[in-house]
Amino acid sequence: MLATRVRTRFMAALPKYFGVGKMRDVGVIGLGSMGLGMAQALIRGGMRVHGYDVSEAARSAFADFGGIVCDSPAHVAQSAPTIFSVVVNAAQTESVLIGEQGILPAGTAGSTLFSCATVSPPEARRLAELCEKGGMRYVDAPISGGPVRAAAGEMTMMLAGAPDVLSELGDVIAAVSGASYNLGTEIGNAAAVKIVNQLLAGVHIVAACEAMALAGKLGIDLDKTYEVITASAGNSWMFENRVPHILEGDYSPKSAIDIFVKDMGIVMDLARAEGFAAPMASSALQMYLAAKGSGYGREDDASVARVYASLAGVELPGHVRS
Amino acid sequence: MLATRVRTRFMAALPKYFGVGKMRDVGVIGLGSMGLGMAQALIRGGMRVHGYDVSEAARSAFADFGGIVCDSPAHVAQSAPTIFSVVVNAAQTESVLIGEQGILPAGTAGSTLFSCATVSPPEARRLAELCEKGGMRYVDAPISGGPVRAAAGEMTMMLAGAPDVLSELGDVIAAVSGASYNLGTEIGNAAAVKIVNQLLAGVHIVAACEAMALAGKLGIDLDKTYEVITASAGNSWMFENRVPHILEGDYSPKSAIDIFVKDMGIVMDLARAEGFAAPMASSALQMYLAAKGSGYGREDDASVARVYASLAGVELPGHVRS
Repeated sequence: MLATRVRTRFMAALPKYFGVGKMRDVGVIGLGSMGLGMAQALIRGGMRVHGYDVSEAARSAFADFGGIVCDSPAHVAQSAPTIFSVVVNAAQTESVLIGEQGILPAGTAGSTLFSCATVSPPEARRLAELCEKGGMRYVDAPISGGPVRAAAGEMTMMLAGAPDVLSELGDVIAAVSGASYNLGTEIGNAAAVKIVNQLLAGVHIVAACEAMALAGKLGIDLDKTYEVITASAGNSWMFENRVPHILEGDYSPKSAIDIFVKDMGIVMDLARAEGFAAPMASSALQMYLAAKGSGYGREDDASVARVYASLAGVELPGHVRS
Repeated sequence: MLATRVRTRFMAALPKYFGVGKMRDVGVIGLGSMGLGMAQALIRGGMRVHGYDVSEAARSAFADFGGIVCDSPAHVAQSAPTIFSVVVNAAQTESVLIGEQGILPAGTAGSTLFSCATVSPPEARRLAELCEKGGMRYVDAPISGGPVRAAAGEMTMMLAGAPDVLSELGDVIAAVSGASYNLGTEIGNAAAVKIVNQLLAGVHIVAACEAMALAGKLGIDLDKTYEVITASAGNSWMFENRVPHILEGDYSPKSAIDIFVKDMGIVMDLARAEGFAAPMASSALQMYLAAKGSGYGREDDASVARVYASLAGVELPGHVRS
């Protein structure tokens, strides 16, 4: 452990000896699976990364990758003019901005916030207003692709904001994303595309679980079914990604049920506010809630398959019929 | 028109001069978009293809591709020992077998039926029994991939049946499919995998329509949304394939609403019979029924987006707010 700390401190110190003047200071607030992955990608991109998370374990993991640990969002703001906020929702983002030891009171004139949480377009506009009042530039910057792609600097980033800001920070954006999409200047547009993506992703996970549990009920070989479907018109990114968890009976959380309870909740709140009937998203949310109610909130979102299995008297790998 | 007929008759006659003794005679009953495509692939594979469809237009299109038109299923059975039945459901397959001028009364001892319609596993077993009684070999052989891939000989074929039959007819299977999956000897296993695939495909189309209509409601650029989603975790085979119809406002039927009214009906009948609650498939079926009820039964299945648009007061390309 001591050896690790020494090694990582040495690695963190290394960049000081190369191109000192040009090195960018970038902040990351929220070092969960996505934020930590982005921090790694930024460090690998040659940037000095200042990070904060409420969790000591997350801060420690960040330090092990060569990150510079800060003790509050305010401290991050004082250390870096470009900050990624990678927390889970609008309430946490607001807390990062104006909570105790928040960014804005720390004085951040001219610095930039990339807000990566999944929020609704109206929430994005409200957060941008808060930043504007505090003299900070706001980029509507939701992300997609999961922790593995985040750590590889290969996730997808949706962007809406001032063109000069996006252009000025192009190298930072390129360091964290394999593909980025400029959705214009209007704050909320990137948030909206992310919501549409989450609607699909959330529905597809539940559909994958429904389909595989039905396959189990019909007594057909699950591995073979996966092989056929992934080569057929029934395939989805989520089917391909999540069904292996079901086949292996491994529900350790790559992405937790609670995340989609939250995200489908945002989808349904927005749809209701817009007067938009969304029966598919609505059914999917009920299944995430049933999974949470069954005690799987912090387990992998493929746990929806265990709910189907229980309801249908099906045995799936690692989930004996109850 | 005359020139076309002469040319195609010439092309149909051509194979007679090459490898006469070895040329396989293969039958295709049901020359809709999938059956016609498969017939083309078989002809290109060097086989002599005997086809029948109740529609004169379908028979004429088949002749134009070099097929030999028969005037009944019985006539096809008398001309070819290997027959693909590519009709829409179990009832039509039964009619092909034992209806007026059906295959079985024509005397078909030792010939083989590939049954490609989407049917439930119990229906597949019943059809196989009919064939067995008539001395015919039955292969449970549902297909997936759409007309374009069918015509290219690149669709996916799921197979269950006797190993010696599948082995003996390997070249015919290879001529029509880019990938084929042997799901064992038990008739109904391939039908089951196809049902699972249709559940997913049917849910994904409705989800794609729900998502794009919501994007329209939120006022974001639809083309850009498509570009982002197809590169993100919300993507599906169906999203990628069907959303262009919505973007172009082109609802000419590549695959009609009625097909999924039928297929999701088969899914829901089977799920009910098995005591399996399938809320996602159930919601999707309601939207296909709403599309059919709105007058879109024979239009493209992406027409579900028009139902969403009407329900939400959204204008989509080619679909003005009603």
